Amino acid sequence: MISTKLTELLGIDHPVVCAPMGSVSGGRLAGAVTRAGGLGLVGVSYGDAAFIDEHVAQAAENGGVWGVGCVMFTFDERPGLWDKVLGYAPPVIALSFGDAAQVHKYVASAADSGAHVVVQVHDPEQAAVAVQAGASVLVAQGAEAGGHHASLATLPLVPAVLDVAQGQVPVVAAGGFADGRGLAAALALGADGVMMGTRFAATEESLATAGFKSRLVSARTADTVNTRAFDVVRGIPWDEAYQARSVSNDFTRTWTGRDAELAARRAAVEPEWTAAVARDDTSQRAMFAGEILDLIEDIQPAAEVVRGVVADAEAILTSLARRTGRPASAA
Amino acid sequence: MISTKLTELLGIDHPVVCAPMGSVSGGRLAGAVTRAGGLGLVGVSYGDAAFIDEHVAQAAENGGVWGVGCVMFTFDERPGLWDKVLGYAPPVIALSFGDAAQVHKYVASAADSGAHVVVQVHDPEQAAVAVQAGASVLVAQGAEAGGHHASLATLPLVPAVLDVAQGQVPVVAAGGFADGRGLAAALALGADGVMMGTRFAATEESLATAGFKSRLVSARTADTVNTRAFDVVRGIPWDEAYQARSVSNDFTRTWTGRDAELAARRAAVEPEWTAAVARDDTSQRAMFAGEILDLIEDIQPAAEVVRGVVADAEAILTSLARRTGRPASAA
Repeated sequence: MISTKLTELLGIDHPVVCAPMGSVSGGRLAGAVTRAGGLGLVGVSYGDAAFIDEHVAQAAENGGVWGVGCVMFTFDERPGLWDKVLGYAPPVIALSFGDAAQVHKYVASAADSGAHVVVQVHDPEQAAVAVQAGASVLVAQGAEAGGHHASLATLPLVPAVLDVAQGQVPVVAAGGFADGRGLAAALALGADGVMMGTRFAATEESLATAGFKSRLVSARTADTVNTRAFDVVRGIPWDEAYQARSVSNDFTRTWTGRDAELAARRAAVEPEWTAAVARDDTSQRAMFAGEILDLIEDIQPAAEVVRGVVADAEAILTSLARRTGRPASAA
Repeated sequence: MISTKLTELLGIDHPVVCAPMGSVSGGRLAGAVTRAGGLGLVGVSYGDAAFIDEHVAQAAENGGVWGVGCVMFTFDERPGLWDKVLGYAPPVIALSFGDAAQVHKYVASAADSGAHVVVQVHDPEQAAVAVQAGASVLVAQGAEAGGHHASLATLPLVPAVLDVAQGQVPVVAAGGFADGRGLAAALALGADGVMMGTRFAATEESLATAGFKSRLVSARTADTVNTRAFDVVRGIPWDEAYQARSVSNDFTRTWTGRDAELAARRAAVEPEWTAAVARDDTSQRAMFAGEILDLIEDIQPAAEVVRGVVADAEAILTSLARRTGRPASAA
């Protein structure tokens, strides 16, 4: 048990958040993390209404401190989906990837619903916007993250965001965390918790396919690549500031850096690619993963991840304090 | 005072290393860090014989646990310089940027001289080579670093290198550290200390020019850029795997990403650039700096940096241990 401003605000046991990964963080994973004392978030951004009715409903039924994660710009394009999410009254709503106007709009709407509003930021300027908009928690996500991210690394980003937040709101560190060493380091940096994606994708409860999970275990950090190819082939209008880190495969090797050509040939490429994804072809599918695959050795139950990370962090911090002592000669 | 495997091996008070920055870490800076209880390293790689006779001699005269930092591939090109360095019998020799054969050659030679041999690595494979070659300390340097670096970020790199080192040799974390939060985080990750560059470049004792120091204080992290332009204009044959992070200026805006063109026009560009550097023109000169400029607010005496970083890290680790307690319900 590690008490932080995050655990106190949300009333959770552990400062560990499961990232709301699209197509990966369903109701079962979110529920398992919440029951283990962390914060489970359902990733609904690429989910349609049916996904919400299955997975958000599942999280809501199980209760506890759970939430949803919404990629703001994708909600702008899908009328009705936001209200459907609010209809399940999530205790926590996590927002990511929107411009300043979208941040103000969705934070206000989420706060009106009574939820704690978490806003993910990638630089100090975005942090200032989120605080001004009324966010109750910031997630400082660095470039080590799997899936979409900006360019600043977590280690320098977290202190810079903390300096903007000035203790007004808890700051959760994300990008590059997978174990107790990472949680201990995040707390030492001054963060109030960690959000982990890849480590929770590699759990029994995640919706990641068998092929994807297998590569999460077998691939190494050096096998990951930043790419826009999956966004281009899917026709999702991501801002070019945000690339996505995936395990590399034939598709990324063929198309990364050839965005315009892929866009031009999309009508021919997309159906074949979609068919390959449907049969879980790991040479073609997106396998979003962070720069921490060297630390992923197995598929675990999500509750084991939470327990292991927290226990290891506690042991590290207790041990470090013992090795710390001011010398007798110091003033 | 924080005791680690690094402080025990070297017999120093604090697990804080001053990076051996070329043209920045002279004898005065190295000596100040050593006298403050850290490890001061003179950066001799771009120095000629006269630089060594001035700055390495200065560090040697002052005594204590000091060392030199050598970019291996540049020594291969300069016969006699290595023996000149060894002639000053540095207690610590730090090696960086060499292929496996160079690592084996220079580690063996440095160890024969009786020095502790520090080898900087950028991925787990390089770590394995360094351990096999007989390194007594590893520096795991992430992409947040100023000057030359590879692509992996510090946060995921450090645990991956620790897993290779398996406790056989201390591991120092580098890239993205500038304050006590960073030292505390590095220790929490399992590292045995931090190496800081930019923070020590922004000290009274550093050889950084007035213009460079001024930009270290005024520029922000978002103003840094990875570039090969300074290596190309200087005609230094850096491996393309290693870009250099600098404060951006007119020169980087003009030439970054245009390596071949700059190389072709070097005869025309280089004299003018060199003249601009000689008059400390910050619109043209290299100003290597890490992804932590948001944390640099002033020029400090080096001893104040060491004392502040260590005191803040101690306070953080002591406070965190107090917030950590296993709940009564846990087994």
